[in-house]
Amino acid sequence: MGSDSDLSVMSKAAEILDLLKVEYELTIVSAHRTPDRLFEYAKNAEGRGINVIIAGAGGAAHLPGMVAAITVLPVVGVPVMTKALGGVDSLYSICQMPPGIPVATVAINGALNAGLLAAKMIAVGDEALRERLKDYAKGLEDMVIKKAEKLESQKYSKYLEEM
Amino acid sequence: MGSDSDLSVMSKAAEILDLLKVEYELTIVSAHRTPDRLFEYAKNAEGRGINVIIAGAGGAAHLPGMVAAITVLPVVGVPVMTKALGGVDSLYSICQMPPGIPVATVAINGALNAGLLAAKMIAVGDEALRERLKDYAKGLEDMVIKKAEKLESQKYSKYLEEM
Amino acid sequence: MGSDSDLSVMSKAAEILDLLKVEYELTIVSAHRTPDRLFEYAKNAEGRGINVIIAGAGGAAHLPGMVAAITVLPVVGVPVMTKALGGVDSLYSICQMPPGIPVATVAINGALNAGLLAAKMIAVGDEALRERLKDYAKGLEDMVIKKAEKLESQKYSKYLEEM
Amino acid sequence: MGSDSDLSVMSKAAEILDLLKVEYELTIVSAHRTPDRLFEYAKNAEGRGINVIIAGAGGAAHLPGMVAAITVLPVVGVPVMTKALGGVDSLYSICQMPPGIPVATVAINGALNAGLLAAKMIAVGDEALRERLKDYAKGLEDMVIKKAEKLESQKYSKYLEEM
Amino acid sequence: MGSDSDLSVMSKAAEILDLLKVEYELTIVSAHRTPDRLFEYAKNAEGRGINVIIAGAGGAAHLPGMVAAITVLPVVGVPVMTKALGGVDSLYSICQMPPGIPVATVAINGALNAGLLAAKMIAVGDEALRERLKDYAKGLEDMVIKKAEKLESQKYSKYLEEM
Amino acid sequence: MGSDSDLSVMSKAAEILDLLKVEYELTIVSAHRTPDRLFEYAKNAEGRGINVIIAGAGGAAHLPGMVAAITVLPVVGVPVMTKALGGVDSLYSICQMPPGIPVATVAINGALNAGLLAAKMIAVGDEALRERLKDYAKGLEDMVIKKAEKLESQKYSKYLEEM
Amino acid sequence: MGSDSDLSVMSKAAEILDLLKVEYELTIVSAHRTPDRLFEYAKNAEGRGINVIIAGAGGAAHLPGMVAAITVLPVVGVPVMTKALGGVDSLYSICQMPPGIPVATVAINGALNAGLLAAKMIAVGDEALRERLKDYAKGLEDMVIKKAEKLESQKYSKYLEEM
Amino acid sequence: MGSDSDLSVMSKAAEILDLLKVEYELTIVSAHRTPDRLFEYAKNAEGRGINVIIAGAGGAAHLPGMVAAITVLPVVGVPVMTKALGGVDSLYSICQMPPGIPVATVAINGALNAGLLAAKMIAVGDEALRERLKDYAKGLEDMVIKKAEKLESQKYSKYLEEM
Repeated sequence: MGSDSDLSVMSKAAEILDLLKVEYELTIVSAHRTPDRLFEYAKNAEGRGINVIIAGAGGAAHLPGMVAAITVLPVVGVPVMTKALGGVDSLYSICQMPPGIPVATVAINGALNAGLLAAKMIAVGDEALRERLKDYAKGLEDMVIKKAEKLESQKYSKYLEEM
Repeated sequence: MGSDSDLSVMSKAAEILDLLKVEYELTIVSAHRTPDRLFEYAKNAEGRGINVIIAGAGGAAHLPGMVAAITVLPVVGVPVMTKALGGVDSLYSICQMPPGIPVATVAINGALNAGLLAAKMIAVGDEALRERLKDYAKGLEDMVIKKAEKLESQKYSKYLEEM
Repeated sequence: MGSDSDLSVMSKAAEILDLLKVEYELTIVSAHRTPDRLFEYAKNAEGRGINVIIAGAGGAAHLPGMVAAITVLPVVGVPVMTKALGGVDSLYSICQMPPGIPVATVAINGALNAGLLAAKMIAVGDEALRERLKDYAKGLEDMVIKKAEKLESQKYSKYLEEM
Repeated sequence: MGSDSDLSVMSKAAEILDLLKVEYELTIVSAHRTPDRLFEYAKNAEGRGINVIIAGAGGAAHLPGMVAAITVLPVVGVPVMTKALGGVDSLYSICQMPPGIPVATVAINGALNAGLLAAKMIAVGDEALRERLKDYAKGLEDMVIKKAEKLESQKYSKYLEEM
Repeated sequence: MGSDSDLSVMSKAAEILDLLKVEYELTIVSAHRTPDRLFEYAKNAEGRGINVIIAGAGGAAHLPGMVAAITVLPVVGVPVMTKALGGVDSLYSICQMPPGIPVATVAINGALNAGLLAAKMIAVGDEALRERLKDYAKGLEDMVIKKAEKLESQKYSKYLEEM
Repeated sequence: MGSDSDLSVMSKAAEILDLLKVEYELTIVSAHRTPDRLFEYAKNAEGRGINVIIAGAGGAAHLPGMVAAITVLPVVGVPVMTKALGGVDSLYSICQMPPGIPVATVAINGALNAGLLAAKMIAVGDEALRERLKDYAKGLEDMVIKKAEKLESQKYSKYLEEM
Repeated sequence: MGSDSDLSVMSKAAEILDLLKVEYELTIVSAHRTPDRLFEYAKNAEGRGINVIIAGAGGAAHLPGMVAAITVLPVVGVPVMTKALGGVDSLYSICQMPPGIPVATVAINGALNAGLLAAKMIAVGDEALRERLKDYAKGLEDMVIKKAEKLESQKYSKYLEEM
Repeated sequence: MGSDSDLSVMSKAAEILDLLKVEYELTIVSAHRTPDRLFEYAKNAEGRGINVIIAGAGGAAHLPGMVAAITVLPVVGVPVMTKALGGVDSLYSICQMPPGIPVATVAINGALNAGLLAAKMIAVGDEALRERLKDYAKGLEDMVIKKAEKLESQKYSKYLEEM
């Protein structure tokens, strides 16, 4: 991530990777404040055995795109919500990359999905991980069905009160 | 893609996959007009040995998100430009997915990048493809440097005329 | 609705339907987390005697459009307000449907109006309901006129204090 | 419609209603230039046996909302695309109605869908029309599947050339 | 105003008119909930000796434009801020009027300026009011100059603390 | 107007004033390129007997607001459409004035309405002009009714062809 | 700045200039409320030995552009965040200047960067200041690296708690 | 500039620098396609005697911000207009920089102003250049006044025809 102020958002990526038993490292690399560190980090990532890089940043969010420019690895970008523009600035800065340098952009503050997406990429060559991803999806489905059953079995106003 | 009217945009994905020697299939699946086909296609994709799905659509672009909801495979979404809103509608409909179901969104009309991103995902487990991706990036770099040299070696107005 | 987090918004539809004595059922169907349930629900709705479906969702809100793609019944879509984009993402995802598959979109968080609109559709063939709808409109009119009279009869600052 | 300059857009509603064998009348009522006519038209519509009103307008598009304020009939609103703002002004003016007065808003320039939506409303009490609507949906599905088969059976570049 | 929920905003217009000694009346007329009252009010305003009408509304804000469609008097429109869209919906609905029916639009929540603008219109034929408007402007100028002097005469941090 | 490039838009204001027999002068004053001229013009306008000032500008459109800051006269602002942002920049720059300095903003490129609005302001003290304004409104109404009659009397496709 | 309500934002410019040992003066000049003061201030600035002017304003923010129109000095504009539109209005009003009169626009509420930018301009002819700017940048870099080391050395959840 | 496709826009900066007799060099550096070249260029610029860097780019426009992150020199950023989003993406990507790394952003496609702004920065220490800048401003003023005189001396319709 570009700043430790993004940690409360980006930690959702770590949580889902923990859940899916995908190894990761978590650090701060600022495209604007530590450009040398950015270059070094992105240049060495492949050699260090990293498979996917998740980069989150807000405002003129250059981190994901610059990492994608330097490494051949797939990069997932998380636009962090901003106070003035709600994160539209982050979204455009990350998503609107020119031909040749893609960033896999997720929703504003969508760090959990960034983790999932990275896991899905790795699962292309890891059948066991793919099974864990299916279990996770099944878990979401079951949770919704359970809630639906609960809602259908009582007055909605009661459900609302209990939330 | 959701409609053959998107083919002129989406064919850029096919072109780059051809260039990178990545096998693919190209077809039309409309989330709105052929929902049964959508379900069948997305459900069977993994079993048929597909590794990544690229889905492009415009407006209330539900195709990428619905495919991602049905399959465990990573899905790349291409927001197609629209006449009234420039593609902001497509971008929001594809990118703003809820936690649990990510779509790897690229730029508006960014089908070339969608192809590249899919290739990068597959290259996680394919060293030879990764090398071809590096060659491609090197090619882009060389092209820019050559243009820069040309521009520096003459009056810019002359360069402009020759474009 | 797509998630029980939308219940506080969507319950306004239930309230107005209660008031207008229109029968309804209220449940959770997530386009993204329970795609099978979505298909089954939308496919069976007509056969179960349902006349209109109201679907509310936020962000990349695919539920109303997908329901409309599967069933022949008229579908009313409620764009739920979102934290980052205020619900513009929900609005575009629901409203900008392609030719052939309409969704009757109401205002952001406009669940009350969704209920009213569904009632108006049913009232096309139900004179008694139409009368109840007229009574409801008359009630709104009377309330405004009463407030206007109160405001005109005193200093506005006093009216403000009493609000 | 609010102006004859909207006719090329709004005529798509007439075309689909012709196709579905739904009777309709087509005229011009301007909320801003003919307010008396607007009131008279909306007040008398129900008595004249009209079931649904489709209203299209651009910019500060008040026609659909004002018709909905005056009549108890369901109103479908078509935001017409505008030169400066692409129709976002029309969309907001039609969609963001206050509680109590819904307008069933379709996509920008979505007159075809407005016609379909009106037909779906009438079909709530007209089984034969519902069947024609199903046939229409089936027709769309078949057309997409045919195109998909054609695209799969040849090189995409050839398909593109023939478009 | 369209609803008493706008009173806390619209009362600023009353305050400035009080200050400028301009007579006015303040009431509620809802374009959507009381369309008959709207027509009657707008039709009779000129005959009752009213010179300018200020109309404030939020969302699909039809009140100012409809009043302007019915009366020959100049109409000032106040777009009221909205929760989901910040008032952009109100602004577009009020400002983007078609040729022939102008609304003098002020800033979002700009009711004070609406009062001032109405006063300026009346002052076209009222020299004494024009002088009071000049005094008001002079008062604003003096206030800024006084603040500037205070800020220049001390450390800004002290000024900040005392705010 | 701020630049002669706005003349094709702003001349609509002159046309309507000609039609309504309202005297006017038409000139170029650039807030940015001729700030001295702006000050002089705005300062002297009242003394020269001018009653209302119409100011049109595009982009960071400061002309209307600066004129309003300098003179006590009512100022009508016309946001001129821009290539990149469609005129939203012009609209915000003209409309979002701070408390104390109103600009009567019309639609993007709404110069005709600016002329009408200025005429309505002058008509506050000019009964004959008010009658001409009523005639103008009546003319618009008649034109719409005539078009409606024509449209109702034939197949819409024929009407379309003849446009 | 245009108003003392902007002081809490604009004081960040003063703080960084203090840190960089750049002399400055801080005052209030309102383009709209004190146009004479604006002209006088901008006209005299160069003669008084000022090198760069930083101007911050919100809404229809005319101050930076008008100062730039009057003086030959470089002007840095700070768009101040607004309640309704988040500062997009301020940003467009400051940034979208016509050819010939540039304003160096920074981010919404970016007063610190405005101070830095002014310092960088002055440093074009002040080697010592340039060194202090390099030290400042080095300080930012070190701070990020220290945070990164801290984050890498412990569980991220612990880091989050300690923030 | 980031690509030779931006040359027709960016050449306006060169033209004004030619006019003002300011020395410059013009080349292509792509943040995304030539990241090494970007680093090298930005790192060496100060040592090579460059005073100001103008960087133009479109879409996810990272070039200006990345140059500003690497060099201590002031950087002027030109958001280049884009087909889908009109350049709002470029504007946000360039303008919304985080505290510590400013980019002096000009209008969308505002390359002429970028050149002027760079010249104004250099003129902080170059009295002769400042005089040429004043002459340039005077030239703009004279041109407007001349056009105003022409427009005032004839019927506006004649002026329009001659444009």
